[in-house]
Amino acid sequence: MAQLITDGSNHGVHPFVCQLRDVDTHLPLSGIELGDIGTKQGWNGIDNGYLRLDNVRVPRTNMLMKYFVVHKDGRYERIGSNDKAIYSTLIYARSLCASFYGGRMVIMAASVAIRHCLVMKCDKYGSLFENRFVKNTLVTELASGLAIWLAGNALSNEYKRLLPRIMDGDSSPLPALHAISSGYKALSTYLGPEGVERCRRCCGQVGGLVASGLPIISETVSPGVTIDGDNTVMYLQLARYLVKLERRRREDGDSKNERGDDVDNEFDSSGPNSKSFALHMIKLHGLKSQKLIEQAYDRMTSLVTSEGLPLYEAWNRTSVDLVQAAEAYTISYAVKSFYDVIMSCGNDQDGGPDRDDEDLKNVLFDVLCLFAVHSFVSSVNVCYHLLTDKLPTSNLSDLRQSIDKMVDKLAPNALALSDGLDLSDAELDTCIGTYCGNTDADIFNYVADVQPYNAKPDLLKPVLEGLRNYFKLRSRL
Amino acid sequence: MAQLITDGSNHGVHPFVCQLRDVDTHLPLSGIELGDIGTKQGWNGIDNGYLRLDNVRVPRTNMLMKYFVVHKDGRYERIGSNDKAIYSTLIYARSLCASFYGGRMVIMAASVAIRHCLVMKCDKYGSLFENRFVKNTLVTELASGLAIWLAGNALSNEYKRLLPRIMDGDSSPLPALHAISSGYKALSTYLGPEGVERCRRCCGQVGGLVASGLPIISETVSPGVTIDGDNTVMYLQLARYLVKLERRRREDGDSKNERGDDVDNEFDSSGPNSKSFALHMIKLHGLKSQKLIEQAYDRMTSLVTSEGLPLYEAWNRTSVDLVQAAEAYTISYAVKSFYDVIMSCGNDQDGGPDRDDEDLKNVLFDVLCLFAVHSFVSSVNVCYHLLTDKLPTSNLSDLRQSIDKMVDKLAPNALALSDGLDLSDAELDTCIGTYCGNTDADIFNYVADVQPYNAKPDLLKPVLEGLRNYFKLRSRL
Repeated sequence: MAQLITDGSNHGVHPFVCQLRDVDTHLPLSGIELGDIGTKQGWNGIDNGYLRLDNVRVPRTNMLMKYFVVHKDGRYERIGSNDKAIYSTLIYARSLCASFYGGRMVIMAASVAIRHCLVMKCDKYGSLFENRFVKNTLVTELASGLAIWLAGNALSNEYKRLLPRIMDGDSSPLPALHAISSGYKALSTYLGPEGVERCRRCCGQVGGLVASGLPIISETVSPGVTIDGDNTVMYLQLARYLVKLERRRREDGDSKNERGDDVDNEFDSSGPNSKSFALHMIKLHGLKSQKLIEQAYDRMTSLVTSEGLPLYEAWNRTSVDLVQAAEAYTISYAVKSFYDVIMSCGNDQDGGPDRDDEDLKNVLFDVLCLFAVHSFVSSVNVCYHLLTDKLPTSNLSDLRQSIDKMVDKLAPNALALSDGLDLSDAELDTCIGTYCGNTDADIFNYVADVQPYNAKPDLLKPVLEGLRNYFKLRSRL
Repeated sequence: MAQLITDGSNHGVHPFVCQLRDVDTHLPLSGIELGDIGTKQGWNGIDNGYLRLDNVRVPRTNMLMKYFVVHKDGRYERIGSNDKAIYSTLIYARSLCASFYGGRMVIMAASVAIRHCLVMKCDKYGSLFENRFVKNTLVTELASGLAIWLAGNALSNEYKRLLPRIMDGDSSPLPALHAISSGYKALSTYLGPEGVERCRRCCGQVGGLVASGLPIISETVSPGVTIDGDNTVMYLQLARYLVKLERRRREDGDSKNERGDDVDNEFDSSGPNSKSFALHMIKLHGLKSQKLIEQAYDRMTSLVTSEGLPLYEAWNRTSVDLVQAAEAYTISYAVKSFYDVIMSCGNDQDGGPDRDDEDLKNVLFDVLCLFAVHSFVSSVNVCYHLLTDKLPTSNLSDLRQSIDKMVDKLAPNALALSDGLDLSDAELDTCIGTYCGNTDADIFNYVADVQPYNAKPDLLKPVLEGLRNYFKLRSRL
């Protein structure tokens, strides 16, 4: 891909193919400089390369010209009105990022840590898992992983459902899909490294052993923030969409839309009815998201109108607010999407029996509520001043306190939830959280047999003899 | 070290020496199982081992018996009243952790990233550093690194000053020193990985190249949370001390002590007088810390008195509150300690000229204020409900908004501050943030020359020929 410049005007980045290496010697052709970019933090199995072209002639017909054409005379022409469809693959890739980093990988780390902590004895508390800190961390991360995984999957499915329409030339679903997939990519790749590390730390220094499997998961998720689109850019792409919506809302004089003005302050987080509490949290997240975009919009427009700044400078100065608004919108969307996934459970033609579905739904509502409350209270400090009329101080404190109870309610199902994903021992590749739960024996087997110097202490013999000769020599001097 | 049991009573963990390996064969002696624990996430240069003793007889005189003795008849006796001095080395080690992880290592990462982002061009904004998000992140992390580094150093110095007294038998400074060193260890090792990652991410995917030096720093700080004492345990050790202080305060009927009731709500964060603003923030941090320990204390005692729980269970149930209180106390202590360091600048006999010291002090006050405000607002959500009478909603919002201005004030000094530490290119080991700032050329030199397949493309020849023969073979089939 490179900037396409014809007749002096730049049409932006366009794709093309060209020959890089000599077919016989495999050496780069003249004017072409390329190579491997070297060892990276994570994903070293992928041979990312660099490429610099210096005065290389690429024939016009080597360009991929389905949605645009450069004619022989250099004239540039768009073909049809569907040129935005080239972004659609990007949307799919981002939805996969969403379900992978903050979803499946966090579930994997939580599963290893939950199994390990359940069998590790801990003083008076029975198991390490009963430690309030460990239990809160692991159950919350499992809930977060499940929420992001299911929300990401729902977006992939939505994309697949809409793709035929898009390819038929209807690009109307693209802006919303592109915006939320950008937000999901950022949210998930932020939550991934943080969640995996939190799980790893619950296992103490054993979680630092590569043999525990956790450092590998940690390294795998760590590059997510900056690859496939930097997260700040991702959130700002979503923010651009939200700013457009907000401008339209104000122009239409619509003051009610998505404002969550109907948030009810009376709620019962500890009651058996997680579903109604989930609806309450959906409204609260919606309100937070809306208030934050309003604040960012006001600040940005006032920088333009009052201080006369150019738009790009006003945008830059408010980017912290814009990113916070985009993050809040993404979480709000994920909570709502997770709710829809639960409600559609068992609606498939091949769904299981009704009774089982109700049981599963209840547990999933517990998962949803914990994710919704935890994600709300842990980021409420950016917008507390905007919510005081809707969320009194005492309610916020109650909400925070309710996390312990929600964790206790969900904890007995934690092992079943992680086992339910059928993660194989081969995939987890761990000696501390295998399916059988035989942590202690597994660790000793690993360190005794796998490490070369432990398995074959004779390997040390030459070193030892070398040292002995050295000291003999010294004593003779 | 092992549990010492004599006459049926357990006296806890005690140190001893014993022979592990045969001097001739270097193989473990009978009953001794040992080895290397294997590859770890970070610090792989250190050969951490495991050891299991099965029916191994250790002679009584092999114990280190300076502060206690086991007599021939099995009687256990403490010697002198200075047995707590054995913890003192621990305090020193923790103060070193404090200045290393969240201090020096974050400064190193921030230095690399600041140099890189200053020279990377970025569209209309001039350099990537001018991006609001990047600038806020890097300047805030540099400030945080400097604050933790200086506060950690101050604790090491305090320890060295008090050590002669402690070794002379005066153990009175130990509880406070042990408590704050535990808190520092936890705070610094939490801030380290987070800060380094935030700096790394500002460099985009280039920060993921091992050649950038940042992944190495990231890996080095990552195990800090769980080594040399798990952070949750560290904070709970400090919390135990704070709970004791709080109980004594209540028994003494002292309602004023450290309560920060004199916090003044009128402050000017943007004014030139950073020193008075620093004093304001010290009071605010003190208030937050005190309110949180009061809340944790109330909750814990009410679980014991109202619900009749045993103390260890009440302690476990309130551990999230206790850890939050301990963290707040540690930050508050670090802010105060940093303030004292600045005030004592130039008081040394070999201090520089007065004028220079004043300039340096002013910049350091800017650093202190930014660290104090950022650490306050980013954790205020755990205690906002406790502060409403002292910190109105509007003030909190103003405080958050003031960060941009403080960053802008400090930003012109960012490069000088990081250069001022005289970090050598050899120590940073980076191709993106060298002292000369020649990022682009450095990266290309690195990837072109250092990676073996890039430097010697002929290395690929046998692979290529192998492939060609394979395809020839297939075409013949």
